[in-house]
Amino acid sequence: MAEVATGPGGAQALERAGEIEAAIEQLKERFQDRCSTSQALREQHGHTTTWLKNQPPDAVIFAATTGEVAEAVRICAAHKVPVIPFGTGSSLEGHVNAPFGGVSIDLSRMNRVLEVNAQDLDCRVEAGVTRKQLNSYIRDTGLFFPIDPGADASIGGMAATRASGTNAVRYGTMKDAVLGLTVVTPDGRIIKTGGRARKSSAGYDLTRLYVGSEGTLGIITELTLRLYGQPEAISGGVCPFPDVEAACNAVIMTIQMGIPVARIELLDAVQVRACNAYSKLSLAETPTLFVEFHGSEASVQEQSETFSAIAEECGGGPFTWATAAEERTKLWSARHDAYWAGKGLKPDSSIMATDVCVPISRLAECVVETARDLAAEGFLAPIVGHVGDGNFHVQILVNVDDPEEKRRTEAFVERLAIRAIAMGGTCTGEHGVGQGKQKFLAREHGEALHVMRALKQALDPDNIMNPGKILPQS
Amino acid sequence: MAEVATGPGGAQALERAGEIEAAIEQLKERFQDRCSTSQALREQHGHTTTWLKNQPPDAVIFAATTGEVAEAVRICAAHKVPVIPFGTGSSLEGHVNAPFGGVSIDLSRMNRVLEVNAQDLDCRVEAGVTRKQLNSYIRDTGLFFPIDPGADASIGGMAATRASGTNAVRYGTMKDAVLGLTVVTPDGRIIKTGGRARKSSAGYDLTRLYVGSEGTLGIITELTLRLYGQPEAISGGVCPFPDVEAACNAVIMTIQMGIPVARIELLDAVQVRACNAYSKLSLAETPTLFVEFHGSEASVQEQSETFSAIAEECGGGPFTWATAAEERTKLWSARHDAYWAGKGLKPDSSIMATDVCVPISRLAECVVETARDLAAEGFLAPIVGHVGDGNFHVQILVNVDDPEEKRRTEAFVERLAIRAIAMGGTCTGEHGVGQGKQKFLAREHGEALHVMRALKQALDPDNIMNPGKILPQS
Repeated sequence: MAEVATGPGGAQALERAGEIEAAIEQLKERFQDRCSTSQALREQHGHTTTWLKNQPPDAVIFAATTGEVAEAVRICAAHKVPVIPFGTGSSLEGHVNAPFGGVSIDLSRMNRVLEVNAQDLDCRVEAGVTRKQLNSYIRDTGLFFPIDPGADASIGGMAATRASGTNAVRYGTMKDAVLGLTVVTPDGRIIKTGGRARKSSAGYDLTRLYVGSEGTLGIITELTLRLYGQPEAISGGVCPFPDVEAACNAVIMTIQMGIPVARIELLDAVQVRACNAYSKLSLAETPTLFVEFHGSEASVQEQSETFSAIAEECGGGPFTWATAAEERTKLWSARHDAYWAGKGLKPDSSIMATDVCVPISRLAECVVETARDLAAEGFLAPIVGHVGDGNFHVQILVNVDDPEEKRRTEAFVERLAIRAIAMGGTCTGEHGVGQGKQKFLAREHGEALHVMRALKQALDPDNIMNPGKILPQS
Repeated sequence: MAEVATGPGGAQALERAGEIEAAIEQLKERFQDRCSTSQALREQHGHTTTWLKNQPPDAVIFAATTGEVAEAVRICAAHKVPVIPFGTGSSLEGHVNAPFGGVSIDLSRMNRVLEVNAQDLDCRVEAGVTRKQLNSYIRDTGLFFPIDPGADASIGGMAATRASGTNAVRYGTMKDAVLGLTVVTPDGRIIKTGGRARKSSAGYDLTRLYVGSEGTLGIITELTLRLYGQPEAISGGVCPFPDVEAACNAVIMTIQMGIPVARIELLDAVQVRACNAYSKLSLAETPTLFVEFHGSEASVQEQSETFSAIAEECGGGPFTWATAAEERTKLWSARHDAYWAGKGLKPDSSIMATDVCVPISRLAECVVETARDLAAEGFLAPIVGHVGDGNFHVQILVNVDDPEEKRRTEAFVERLAIRAIAMGGTCTGEHGVGQGKQKFLAREHGEALHVMRALKQALDPDNIMNPGKILPQS
């Protein structure tokens, strides 16, 4: 149960605990063994792949349908008990923590692909379907779903955090991938937003209001998604650069020239070293771009050649092609394993993973200043970035049990966020706000934060939907 | 002045008229000769390129800065007087009408391009800049802004209606083109949404809430926009088909194969006849696709060849290339003049222009049923579509002064909207809701309409921002 405070607020806290107990009783009756209050399960559902303190919910429900989610929400709403949606628990900023207790609604059993419309390049899935599951399911149709955050996250969770990944430079983020949603509102109604038309001017864009709202306005239970035809040909490779500036300049020229690059990722020297060790590569330990081109055979060849010339002009190269599927898979597996490779540099450490995004013209400056900052602190911290978008990640390998090290890491993260915002960027490009980035929102959004608060107040007046996330307490 | 009602509501109406008079007095003091109540100017500012009745505002303000817009809004808010933003007046669904009177804020003098960041492929403009003005301004930078509705609309108005055009199949709509906004809220505060980062997960997506909100939540005064590098090569051409199905099948295959077609437009036989006459072309009068490819020389050649093969496979062709800039310009001017070409078929008529959008797999069916419906009514009505998006337009050439003809046209538009919604589509792909499409929103959005109302109520509790648009009276 949520901790019962003593002192002046004691009576209120007791009443609150009573409401939570009453709600759980009703939920147990309705959901039977799919409503659990086991300690282990509760802790697992407050788990978050970062250093934030575990704040478990009071109970966990495993929902099987949108209707069940709505029922559970109505029970919680009647008791004003917090509701925390849960997908796979791979978020990084404490999104699934339950700082005010409440009920975690686990959607992982809602994992059906409901329809695939090959002619329209779209599909409809339940929120618990994971990105890898979806891609396995549709492989034979010749289609694919391009959004690929590091983890095999649930599609619902990816929408809730406005996730992206390595393909975003060409295929966009969840904001672009989602055509429509089914959402359970905080009062337990079921609404549908958007639809299957490729575009619409018919009213407010509710789809994109819920995408990125991190469960604070409602629970996403189904999604209609854009799919893409698998490219006829894929080629790619790696290209070393003498420094981060040279690599960033190559990226800027690539994009300015309109090369439809599918992936263009920057690994700094520390990250390359980590990947060499973890994924058994033998790359030069210098800032390196991983690139990939999608298109026809002729087109990917032309793109590769043009990119190679650009890289050379920027002082980089040689560009090593990897056209064989096996080679490419090895490279991109290494890229996707960057998180674990980083951890491998200092296996007994924790990882504090953070991300920011800046206009690409400021990227080199931001990365270089950040690397200098890390060096001054003596932090071991690989940097890897979706550099085509100006988005990069820092993984700081720290000992979270050391209060001083933790404090210094938090101070670094704060400097990084402020640096990115000062460069016209954002405190998070794809991880989301959760609990970890709330304190930067006023700086980033200014007066617009009042509008966000007004929306939250209008749609969730009792603040039961994932409370304590996104909006800082005012 | 707004009409003063008699009867039970008379006292209220009188008080209302008094408030409007008081606001205008203050506005005249503040804006001097930039506040006008001339009949001609008021009527012009209620003008809308459609058949909807002119409902002029009580006064027109010409604002020069965001600060001035905020001042004007604060004066109107103090008197609870309606505010109607005005760009170029090229909207089609009565967006600038003033059904409850009030003050039109004309933004056309806010027409400065504030910055162009070539490295980041973005720019910042005032809301009154038109799309052609922007493209002229940036031509020498090698960049272009791809969104091209028929009219030379203001960028602010295009954002407000979530406009798109012929390039949307490749470059997206205003939803995708806008990175950030400056907005004056209904209480006269100035907020900034989004920013220059290519992506962000930092809080609610206010940018996309205001895009498409048609001035009902605030006034967009500045915009940060994505730009694109001018393609190295452009090629395109025209391709006749025996029927609409064959043309639609070719489009579906083109997109499924991942050909990055920049434009793919369907003209039905009536529209081809109209364009032949108006733009002095000599095309076969049969359903025809206009297509355009952007890329490197080799890539556009390859795209053209692949498309040509697809067209033939679908029973169409021959595909006539137009690689010379002059030829292409002639074709696309003809496409952009489709509206006037249509009118040329029956010069003494009015035009009732409407649009819907459906999943592309249903497009042929929707167009064919619609053509049959038009024939049954005996309407002369060219059809032209952004067929890569499933979006098409019908221009009905009618005599709006004939009440029976008007009634039949309205009934047709209603059947068309219902048909599109029933096929999983939307009652408007790019024109917006305004006054003309309100009655279809409940059918299209169901319960979600309540959420839209809650947002409107939260952000504009006195309903002063462009009242009587988007949301049907409940």
